[in-house]
Amino acid sequence: MTIKISQNFDSGAIEVLRADSAAEIELNLRKDNNADIHQWFHFRVQGARGQQLRMRFLNAGSATYAKGYEDYQAVASYDTETWFRVPTHFDGEVMTIKHTPDTDSVYYAYFEPYSFERHLRLLGEIGEHPLARVQDLGSTVDGRDMNLVVVGNPDAEKKIWIIARQHPGESMAEWFVEGLVDSLLDDANPIARKLLQRCVFYIVPNMNPDGSVRGNLRTNAAGANLNREWMTPTLERSPEVLCVKEKMHATGIDMFFDIHGDEALPYNFVAGNEMLENFSEERRVAQQAFIDRYKASSPDFQDKYGYAASKYKEDMLTLASKYVGHHFGCLALTLEMPFKDNADLPDPRVGWNGARSAALGAAMLQPILLSLDD
Amino acid sequence: MTIKISQNFDSGAIEVLRADSAAEIELNLRKDNNADIHQWFHFRVQGARGQQLRMRFLNAGSATYAKGYEDYQAVASYDTETWFRVPTHFDGEVMTIKHTPDTDSVYYAYFEPYSFERHLRLLGEIGEHPLARVQDLGSTVDGRDMNLVVVGNPDAEKKIWIIARQHPGESMAEWFVEGLVDSLLDDANPIARKLLQRCVFYIVPNMNPDGSVRGNLRTNAAGANLNREWMTPTLERSPEVLCVKEKMHATGIDMFFDIHGDEALPYNFVAGNEMLENFSEERRVAQQAFIDRYKASSPDFQDKYGYAASKYKEDMLTLASKYVGHHFGCLALTLEMPFKDNADLPDPRVGWNGARSAALGAAMLQPILLSLDD
Amino acid sequence: MTIKISQNFDSGAIEVLRADSAAEIELNLRKDNNADIHQWFHFRVQGARGQQLRMRFLNAGSATYAKGYEDYQAVASYDTETWFRVPTHFDGEVMTIKHTPDTDSVYYAYFEPYSFERHLRLLGEIGEHPLARVQDLGSTVDGRDMNLVVVGNPDAEKKIWIIARQHPGESMAEWFVEGLVDSLLDDANPIARKLLQRCVFYIVPNMNPDGSVRGNLRTNAAGANLNREWMTPTLERSPEVLCVKEKMHATGIDMFFDIHGDEALPYNFVAGNEMLENFSEERRVAQQAFIDRYKASSPDFQDKYGYAASKYKEDMLTLASKYVGHHFGCLALTLEMPFKDNADLPDPRVGWNGARSAALGAAMLQPILLSLDD
Amino acid sequence: MTIKISQNFDSGAIEVLRADSAAEIELNLRKDNNADIHQWFHFRVQGARGQQLRMRFLNAGSATYAKGYEDYQAVASYDTETWFRVPTHFDGEVMTIKHTPDTDSVYYAYFEPYSFERHLRLLGEIGEHPLARVQDLGSTVDGRDMNLVVVGNPDAEKKIWIIARQHPGESMAEWFVEGLVDSLLDDANPIARKLLQRCVFYIVPNMNPDGSVRGNLRTNAAGANLNREWMTPTLERSPEVLCVKEKMHATGIDMFFDIHGDEALPYNFVAGNEMLENFSEERRVAQQAFIDRYKASSPDFQDKYGYAASKYKEDMLTLASKYVGHHFGCLALTLEMPFKDNADLPDPRVGWNGARSAALGAAMLQPILLSLDD
Ligand SMILES: [Ca+2]
Ligand SMILES: [Ca+2]
Ligand SMILES: [Ca+2]
Ligand SMILES: [Ca+2]
Repeated sequence: MTIKISQNFDSGAIEVLRADSAAEIELNLRKDNNADIHQWFHFRVQGARGQQLRMRFLNAGSATYAKGYEDYQAVASYDTETWFRVPTHFDGEVMTIKHTPDTDSVYYAYFEPYSFERHLRLLGEIGEHPLARVQDLGSTVDGRDMNLVVVGNPDAEKKIWIIARQHPGESMAEWFVEGLVDSLLDDANPIARKLLQRCVFYIVPNMNPDGSVRGNLRTNAAGANLNREWMTPTLERSPEVLCVKEKMHATGIDMFFDIHGDEALPYNFVAGNEMLENFSEERRVAQQAFIDRYKASSPDFQDKYGYAASKYKEDMLTLASKYVGHHFGCLALTLEMPFKDNADLPDPRVGWNGARSAALGAAMLQPILLSLDD
Repeated sequence: MTIKISQNFDSGAIEVLRADSAAEIELNLRKDNNADIHQWFHFRVQGARGQQLRMRFLNAGSATYAKGYEDYQAVASYDTETWFRVPTHFDGEVMTIKHTPDTDSVYYAYFEPYSFERHLRLLGEIGEHPLARVQDLGSTVDGRDMNLVVVGNPDAEKKIWIIARQHPGESMAEWFVEGLVDSLLDDANPIARKLLQRCVFYIVPNMNPDGSVRGNLRTNAAGANLNREWMTPTLERSPEVLCVKEKMHATGIDMFFDIHGDEALPYNFVAGNEMLENFSEERRVAQQAFIDRYKASSPDFQDKYGYAASKYKEDMLTLASKYVGHHFGCLALTLEMPFKDNADLPDPRVGWNGARSAALGAAMLQPILLSLDD
Repeated sequence: MTIKISQNFDSGAIEVLRADSAAEIELNLRKDNNADIHQWFHFRVQGARGQQLRMRFLNAGSATYAKGYEDYQAVASYDTETWFRVPTHFDGEVMTIKHTPDTDSVYYAYFEPYSFERHLRLLGEIGEHPLARVQDLGSTVDGRDMNLVVVGNPDAEKKIWIIARQHPGESMAEWFVEGLVDSLLDDANPIARKLLQRCVFYIVPNMNPDGSVRGNLRTNAAGANLNREWMTPTLERSPEVLCVKEKMHATGIDMFFDIHGDEALPYNFVAGNEMLENFSEERRVAQQAFIDRYKASSPDFQDKYGYAASKYKEDMLTLASKYVGHHFGCLALTLEMPFKDNADLPDPRVGWNGARSAALGAAMLQPILLSLDD
Repeated sequence: MTIKISQNFDSGAIEVLRADSAAEIELNLRKDNNADIHQWFHFRVQGARGQQLRMRFLNAGSATYAKGYEDYQAVASYDTETWFRVPTHFDGEVMTIKHTPDTDSVYYAYFEPYSFERHLRLLGEIGEHPLARVQDLGSTVDGRDMNLVVVGNPDAEKKIWIIARQHPGESMAEWFVEGLVDSLLDDANPIARKLLQRCVFYIVPNMNPDGSVRGNLRTNAAGANLNREWMTPTLERSPEVLCVKEKMHATGIDMFFDIHGDEALPYNFVAGNEMLENFSEERRVAQQAFIDRYKASSPDFQDKYGYAASKYKEDMLTLASKYVGHHFGCLALTLEMPFKDNADLPDPRVGWNGARSAALGAAMLQPILLSLDD
């Protein structure tokens, strides 16, 4: 059988330059549909059972986060459900995956995908739970629904907001939300039950459905990086942010979490608000307390490695967590998970993955509960 | 909350004329993307929990198979997994669904959908079974993979071919295949084991992935009705047929089944080859024997109601089962399942559905086995 | 670790003569608790991971059905759920199992067990189905409940009776019933739905719970072979038969099936009523028609090998199916499944097992439906 | 149908005085098989569908822990898998359950049972996990296996011992262990992975299998309260303790937990070692730190309500946790869960139950990890 490479499915993305033999496959990372960004990939290879595939990504060196391919192992799956890591090498220019598939059909991706269909099924299950509602906030550029999950009583004292996947290729962010929501709706989870005595959760599982389906890394269908749109979102360019921002101002916010993935750092960490003008000592203490509690809740979480505060510029209020921290004066964190593995607790077989992201999401309930009165 | 109707998801299809109140929703059935056909619908309604929806399909009377809406009940789901029938009325011009949803989000469709993601997951599972292989035959107009499932030893004496869903809105056809393949790969199923001693199965679970994802009823992305393309398929207009036809001629065929749904008739039945010139008495007897065995195998199957032989015209060899019957001189049947219910064994709660289609698929193994030597 | 052999659990039965080393284990088959019968075994071996066990059953040659160990492979399981066959040899005197377990704990048995807990869970699930009821008929010698499953409307035209596991070591009989009942209660099964339009099913999943829990092969707690008690059952010796027989006379019977396992023959077959005085030509034809339909329904079923009619003696009315055939003048069959494998369709990995027994049970619905008017 | 009450199944226990009508059922709590203790009950009622059962436990006032019936609601199940609370009243003499079952067969129990079959299945699953082993330590009075689960590397720095269900009627203790072990073996659980870098867990899921199967509350088959046998266990009277104690001395212990249920207090709490002579200030601090961490880990855990230290007498070293604390000088706690509900976080529908016990078990991993270096 000849080698066939395809990508017309949810979040599929690749360009095939050459695939005439298993050993000589040449690929290019495909750009986001409307922006000069290339990094994400997701494709299917057929016809290579028992042959060693040698797949070279020729333009990896010019990728948006080329450092993301250093010490990185790609993920693969035969059944679209179980994903594992495969040997991957990056020489600074070309990234090469070598793998001998066991079956006729195999998928490779930058990270374990979270599909739009799974997204809709998650909303469906949540919507049938007596403690939860699913609301519509508006529509994306492509006309997909922007859904908000509301767990708990909207009149509750504390409003907790969680948004995920502004950058659609960061699929770990939606796995994180699935884990968090499953725990929040678990009758036998005492932390969840305590939280719902005082809190309502507003959760946007996917801020960027269009980019997710299209296989973009960072942008929506209009080419906007949504996490630079929070000051002046528009209906044309960033309706996804516009509708969520409006709802936030309608409900108020007491804690905010924006869930992301980081291409380069092999760690889980948060970026806080210490660079904001109105960031008081009290808030600094509260922010650090939250971080410390999260470290206790999950050894997958740490605060040794992360972003330097100096990274942020004048336009930083275009970012969701800075915008929220500035306007609502509350705890507002950007949470980052690795595309690679957690170097503190590596699992070479699967690396960082959907299940571990979900566990990290579930583990965030404890620091939220312990920080409610900070 | 205001009413929101959306359709940008797998097989979504509707046009909204007016949705300002739950009681006054006006819709139009949307055309297939490239053909003057309208019949299929699949959409999501948000914001109507506890309100009676009254949804009027204004152009139902001009639908391709308007009779399909007589005595028809639409299907609905809250979670995209469990589907049930809802009160539906057709006055010859307008079809009206009245339903009060229990949750904030509800889906309505012409028939229980079978998504492309489920299709790929099915292929993934099959591909890991030791008795099965998944082959690539080519690509659709939109660049999706045309996959063939091969169960059993290609050198086996008898080649059984099954294709499904040439008409993409006939999603029951892929449920049928899923049920058949699950049974065929079940170690504890003695009929399957007997069959695989002598047969190899070539199965195309979905002949029209593009039309399926696009929410078409009858045509592929190029606007072709694939079941009129079997004489002269082309790469531009009907690559889906072209690649399958080539493979058929490469393998030969001893029995052939083309799985469909019928919009009007509330029965399961087959259309045979009695109108073919080369249809011998021997084949007539064999065809009827198969039908009788299928009736014994499944009381959901019957042969009292069906298509008149006179329905077929000169161009009938453009149809898959006529083409195969003519060229291979073998048993070649078009199987039709209802969009409505099986009037012989009605289940008002769910009507004819995915599970019953799957059971009918599983039940076809018995008449195949008993007819191997006809 | 030293070798440890134990048997104090549901249906456990073995006597350990010597187990000081993995290679030199000597066992005796244990007698039924109150009868001079030994054949069934079920025990757990601990401490042998990675060591070849050589287990010799010294009294196998004097077992009740010593021929049952010819060409027989014992079953084993690590998790009590997945069972597989292991190399077993019988020299006419001693049966020897050789097996190197993968884990520290492994179970061996004569056939895949069906526990009393699973029995109660099955009743629990059935009892919640809208089409079924669970009735109490009385108590066993040890005080366990004798339960009757009633599926369908008691006023229905045809009364179908099925009893299983009079001989408790024939656990395949209860797997058979589980498969049959699952199919009967499956909304998507058209044969079941047709049957329930005209029939009520009275099913006793386990005629001998005491013997089952005690690990007996053939007898109840009082030492009675229940399938020799149908003429004069007593409350002291065979209350299990007494209460079922009374209920049968209260409901009447139109078809009767008594589900068993046969130690020697590697086939599925039935024993009929041709030796009964009142067995008419009409009944002979009907009986053969049922058999032929069952063969079509399941290639695991056959009628080439079976019991000679001459096997039955004057006291044959003490057997359930003869008693019923005599008194009710209806189709009354004893169905036998192998402890070994089905030689017509062998599967060396698992032999005949629970899943295949369940499939054979499900497959019996078709010949019942087709024979209703015989 | 007449009312039938039965109890011959795993952990069944009741005495029926009168059951001639649903409204007038009189019962007595049955004694432990070899001790003058009555408290536990578990029985099945048949024939009462749609009738209000009024079941009076006449000897409840003289029960071993009569206060356990104050503000207590019994549990019930139709399918033996889903358990819920039913209206129960205790007047100091007689306990009365009033309940109208939905189906023909219903079970009532003192607490959600955990059967011996589930116990063996749990061991089977654990034994197949690459990180775990199942060892045999000896046999009970009745000849059941005393199994030890070993998770992690026996050469690890820290030895964590957990034993459960010395008192067999305290079935929540085995649910607790199941939850803890499931978490410990979960690849995606970072706390478990951190723990297994430094610790080996020795876990006895059920210290008293005989009492569990027999439906005893507090004693083994010989009538011994195992938690009073730790000074001088004997092979005749308390082999269960003897073999575990020997293994403990062979491995050493760094932390010890003995899992129990308390009949009276509606809280989760631990009893510590402050009454021991060798209990240093350092250990007091470490013990309180563990308690505080557990409170953070699970809001179902608290330390406001519990046992007074003065409760313990001279013979206190006969208790497992006191014995271990005394001999090994380590953290050694008896953990108690309620039979009733957790009054801090009540769930009237199910009360305290198996799922919540499992969650509390899973939640204990965090305080163990955080206390490793105390
Ligand atoms: Ca990012
Ligand atoms: Ca059609
Ligand atoms: Ca037998
Ligand atoms: Ca206790």
